[in-house]
Amino acid sequence: MEQIAQQFTDFYYSTFDSDRSQLASLYRAQSMLTFEGAQTQGAQAIAEKLAGLPFQRVQHKVETLDAQPTGSDGTSLVVLVTGMLVVDDGQNPLKFSQSFTLNPEGNSYYVFNDIFRLNYG
Amino acid sequence: MEQIAQQFTDFYYSTFDSDRSQLASLYRAQSMLTFEGAQTQGAQAIAEKLAGLPFQRVQHKVETLDAQPTGSDGTSLVVLVTGMLVVDDGQNPLKFSQSFTLNPEGNSYYVFNDIFRLNYG
Repeated sequence: MEQIAQQFTDFYYSTFDSDRSQLASLYRAQSMLTFEGAQTQGAQAIAEKLAGLPFQRVQHKVETLDAQPTGSDGTSLVVLVTGMLVVDDGQNPLKFSQSFTLNPEGNSYYVFNDIFRLNYG
Repeated sequence: MEQIAQQFTDFYYSTFDSDRSQLASLYRAQSMLTFEGAQTQGAQAIAEKLAGLPFQRVQHKVETLDAQPTGSDGTSLVVLVTGMLVVDDGQNPLKFSQSFTLNPEGNSYYVFNDIFRLNYG
């Protein structure tokens, strides 16, 4: 389970940091994103929201990663990530927290719930 | 939904901060807690884990609270909280992040997933 969460977050953040328009493939029509309190639903709308964030270059540095099974049959995963976000010139890294619920689909997982918050110091 | 999450977290943290041994009533046998990477399962074991944390007085100050419906029938809630933890003499508040999955039970909810992390500066 931790391995799945690790593989997912490695892929998610490397995609986010290289070409975040590609993240649409990780969401589905019923997926939800709450980004700094703003709610978006559906893969296309979520990808547009993420693509439109006001920074060009970004790097996520994961500091903690925890996962637990969830859902009525225990085949989904809830993941909590905390880390640092380095944007553009990287002078002032920001701390962030992000929770995901990942649902199984075939041999893989998609993002059902995604909640992101910056942790201002 | 936000109202349920708000009511739950108000009750959870006020109970935690006044008499955290009472938190057992919010968990069930299948509930999971991952606290700073340490995993515990079951209401009694979780309550003992929380009661045994190495501080006497503690105060949670919620800074952000977000919630989304989750689960196959959308009746569960995933909640992400970020805030400050003031312990004992309160000289150095700690930032924390905590994700909950709340499952419905009668007219109320219990904690199915609970992941807690301190965010060291």
